[in-house]
Amino acid sequence: MPIYKAPVADTLFVLNDVLGYERYSNLPGFSDAGPDVLEAILEEAAKLAENVMHPLNRVGDEEGCVRSADGSVKTPKGFKQAYDQYREGGWMGLSIPEEFGGQGLPYTVHSAVGEYLSSANMALMMYPGLTQGAIAAILAHGSDEQKQTYVPKMTEGVWTGTMNLTEPHCGTDLGMLRTKAVPNGNGGYKISGQKIFISAGEHDMSENIIHLVLARIEGAPEGVKGISLFIVPKFKLDADGNPGERNAVVCGSIEEKMGIHGNSTCVMNYDEAEGYLIGQEHGGLKAMFVMMNEARLGVGLQGLSMGEIAYQNAVSYAKERIQGRSLSGPKAPDKKADPIIVHPDIRRKLMVMRAFNEAGRALVLWTALKSDVAHRSGDEADRQAADDHLGLMTPIIKGVLTDKGFEHAVMAQQVFGGHGYIEEHGMSQFVRDARIAQIYEGANGIQALDLVGRKLALNGGRAVQAFFKEVGDFCEENRADETMAPFTKSLKKGLNDLQAATIWLMQNAMQKPDNAGAASTDYLHLFGLVALGYMWARMAKTAQERIVEGTSRPLHENKLVTARYYFERVMPETAAHLARISAGADSMMALAEDAF
Amino acid sequence: MPIYKAPVADTLFVLNDVLGYERYSNLPGFSDAGPDVLEAILEEAAKLAENVMHPLNRVGDEEGCVRSADGSVKTPKGFKQAYDQYREGGWMGLSIPEEFGGQGLPYTVHSAVGEYLSSANMALMMYPGLTQGAIAAILAHGSDEQKQTYVPKMTEGVWTGTMNLTEPHCGTDLGMLRTKAVPNGNGGYKISGQKIFISAGEHDMSENIIHLVLARIEGAPEGVKGISLFIVPKFKLDADGNPGERNAVVCGSIEEKMGIHGNSTCVMNYDEAEGYLIGQEHGGLKAMFVMMNEARLGVGLQGLSMGEIAYQNAVSYAKERIQGRSLSGPKAPDKKADPIIVHPDIRRKLMVMRAFNEAGRALVLWTALKSDVAHRSGDEADRQAADDHLGLMTPIIKGVLTDKGFEHAVMAQQVFGGHGYIEEHGMSQFVRDARIAQIYEGANGIQALDLVGRKLALNGGRAVQAFFKEVGDFCEENRADETMAPFTKSLKKGLNDLQAATIWLMQNAMQKPDNAGAASTDYLHLFGLVALGYMWARMAKTAQERIVEGTSRPLHENKLVTARYYFERVMPETAAHLARISAGADSMMALAEDAF
Repeated sequence: MPIYKAPVADTLFVLNDVLGYERYSNLPGFSDAGPDVLEAILEEAAKLAENVMHPLNRVGDEEGCVRSADGSVKTPKGFKQAYDQYREGGWMGLSIPEEFGGQGLPYTVHSAVGEYLSSANMALMMYPGLTQGAIAAILAHGSDEQKQTYVPKMTEGVWTGTMNLTEPHCGTDLGMLRTKAVPNGNGGYKISGQKIFISAGEHDMSENIIHLVLARIEGAPEGVKGISLFIVPKFKLDADGNPGERNAVVCGSIEEKMGIHGNSTCVMNYDEAEGYLIGQEHGGLKAMFVMMNEARLGVGLQGLSMGEIAYQNAVSYAKERIQGRSLSGPKAPDKKADPIIVHPDIRRKLMVMRAFNEAGRALVLWTALKSDVAHRSGDEADRQAADDHLGLMTPIIKGVLTDKGFEHAVMAQQVFGGHGYIEEHGMSQFVRDARIAQIYEGANGIQALDLVGRKLALNGGRAVQAFFKEVGDFCEENRADETMAPFTKSLKKGLNDLQAATIWLMQNAMQKPDNAGAASTDYLHLFGLVALGYMWARMAKTAQERIVEGTSRPLHENKLVTARYYFERVMPETAAHLARISAGADSMMALAEDAF
Repeated sequence: MPIYKAPVADTLFVLNDVLGYERYSNLPGFSDAGPDVLEAILEEAAKLAENVMHPLNRVGDEEGCVRSADGSVKTPKGFKQAYDQYREGGWMGLSIPEEFGGQGLPYTVHSAVGEYLSSANMALMMYPGLTQGAIAAILAHGSDEQKQTYVPKMTEGVWTGTMNLTEPHCGTDLGMLRTKAVPNGNGGYKISGQKIFISAGEHDMSENIIHLVLARIEGAPEGVKGISLFIVPKFKLDADGNPGERNAVVCGSIEEKMGIHGNSTCVMNYDEAEGYLIGQEHGGLKAMFVMMNEARLGVGLQGLSMGEIAYQNAVSYAKERIQGRSLSGPKAPDKKADPIIVHPDIRRKLMVMRAFNEAGRALVLWTALKSDVAHRSGDEADRQAADDHLGLMTPIIKGVLTDKGFEHAVMAQQVFGGHGYIEEHGMSQFVRDARIAQIYEGANGIQALDLVGRKLALNGGRAVQAFFKEVGDFCEENRADETMAPFTKSLKKGLNDLQAATIWLMQNAMQKPDNAGAASTDYLHLFGLVALGYMWARMAKTAQERIVEGTSRPLHENKLVTARYYFERVMPETAAHLARISAGADSMMALAEDAF
């Protein structure tokens, strides 16, 4: 049976020691979750993850969701009960404003908790995850009446939400979507069309499902400029606001997928379903992006969460499984063989995963704090700088952490040898579940294009310049510190490669946009390496301070080792990315289409 | 439905144009398969792969194998009929000596054919694949009587074979194995124990199954020096050599696996089953390695085969699926969007896969030719040099081609976006099937150790020095050729990195073996990059020659583009491998075990 232990101590190290969580106590919500409350919340979330969600993870994979002929969907055994515990514990509303029934706590806390719950049961946590995205969109673009009608019930978790974007012929290119909206004469619309890949589209866990649906109002302009967003509840509300008559939206089938079997991924058929416009006519894409951006950070977190639980299980197996002898002489001479953790190539795998997980966690929490500043600070300059950071890091967190999360789930599976390939140990499930995170909410190639094509040049490159300056200043400030030199030297080299790549793009992508596309994925990962490297440098700095102060724990010593590993063995990859970027698009685009 | 088209033209280009297949016509078997016959065989194999094997691939995944309470196993619908066609076509015996009923053709031809068949249906092809490994072991170590008793029937395919190594507590470390062999007084042995992960261990496709089983003769020394190899037929043979009484070996269960569902992976229980020693007492490991080495090349071929079919399907989808517009202006203005092959990041994926597949195919065929020379040449020096090459390249082909095959199956799946994650398009199956090749026949970490710990220093480094010299000479010879400069310059840089890494290992791994272990996987992949780069340089050279001669086809022009892509965008990775190797084992091994 797979194991899971929420890394609470590591989260606290990052938030309290490295990022100075207490410094944000002037922001709304933060004073309600000071360090003690924060720790208590994380401990409670850890229990929920370890004891309630995690034991159901295999069940969800094995049973999957079952659709009946009437379109209803049964979730795996125990899922509804676990969801009820989540709901009753008030977890859904953790960072939702109090006026809508939430607790108004920092998004940062929500993110920290989200990692644990997703590690424990990614498929199950997608039901509330999509609900939170839907809440965010309604809060950002809905009318006051819509907010009052839907958000409190969703915050309570008795209603859930979905996002309906994809159609059979369009996913990335939403401009082609065909779902129609025709005014029904009562201020509402009749929505008709087919949506596919709708996570949590139909299930038995909530009293109502609030679908947010992209559709084209009759006579709207072509392309993305003619798309509007609608609320389409599964059950229309009666005069008292309770679920009443069934709406004309039904789950036509559920997809057979590689993983996340516990989540019902539905084909949703809309047949003149009653829907209500949210936000402006033809302003649907903008409204949807509120959900998308929140969802992208959530998906990045899923990548991290899979990398973490896969790592933990690889560690556990590597300590238990005995096979062969250490190259430097027996380490367990009383046994027939040494535990495989003595073998360097096993260690290599564990260290790579660990180095990415710990830095990934720091990057997520740093960015979550920026999100809180962006949404809650009273200072406009602070808000703007934080929002710049959030926009810049969203594609990086989504793209890099999900690519690495999958890669590391595969790596952890490899530690198990043949035992990793059979379903019994659960490692295959981590791989199969992690795979989706690279695809949905904008495939990672789209994240890379968002970074290179939009975020980089936005506001004259303000966000990226601020990041370069912060990292550069950090290297400069710590240049004289001998204990920091092994880290800052490598970080600076990485930053130089990133800046060189950025300049190359500025000089070569304007006249020839294919050069940007050709560079995009490498640039995304190059940026990720530097951002994660910066997290390692800051963690190392904090650890050094504790050591100098005499207040260090083993956690701090271990951080220095892992930081060193990262800078010695991961950071050198920046050069290959730069080489590829500077090669340009020519050899990539030269073959005629029919040569393939 | 997934597509597949055997790359016959590419195989012929490599064999005839690049490797000079005709030059080997003096070797036994080659004269029976001159260029015309070779082409005819490949075309026939292509038909079998495309029309018989490939249509059953999805069926195999969906149905899997079913075990009944009596231990019998039913293979997926159509598998037996397809296997019968394979068998009746004489494919099993393609390169088996004529005296045992085979056709005695080159192993090279067998390898070329093997790629197609494995692409088309990897799970199905494992049944004959294991049989061929078993035949190789019996031919190398069996008595004349054993050869005559078993090999002709296996060559005919009416009997199949298996390899029984792994036990629940030992895989890599076979020294711990517990399966017992007790002399039965009739010259045979009673074999008792449990074996796991036995591919094709039980099924309904052949009249008998010849298990090759590693076991420890009562009183044998501990460790690997006490292991012997036994033949244990499912049905004991009667006086006429026909299957008679059932032997005491039974399939206890079949494993639920991530992929290759069409192959029955069995737990095999031996309860005083009658077995016959093959080769020397306690010489089992040596005998088993004959199978292993053959099997490792076969598994490398599986990696290539999965990368190839995944690539073909990604290409097909990328040409059909329309989504978004080209960054350099619409390419299909008559359509609502351009086919996604216009997008550089999609092209990048296709080009990476293509570059590895074509070079991987060349590396496999080059090595297969060396295997033929090693086994068939009359010249001892030639045999030795070829055998050196074979030993050196075996872990590289197994490790690198399976890592890349999996990586590229994932990459091809990514081209499909959400449609790749659902089972309908078959991309998930390629990923799940490809995954096993990194694990079995020695997990890739073991391949890396075999390379660094054994092959590198063998005979004073003779094999590796010969390879360095050949590649270095090629670069030198072509230095003045301007058309070759873009390729040889990058190849030389890669070779320099590989040589630097080799020197580093020589200087740092003797006193501290952990440095070898810590470097092993990076060294394996660094070596792979250079070996594949050498294949690209040779293919480019041939293509250039055709162009100069005026005999070029589009295939030759395309080779130059793909070669350029490889050297510009893949080869630069050698530097990161060298950096990691030279970092040594310290930061990797520094953490205390309980810090994990």
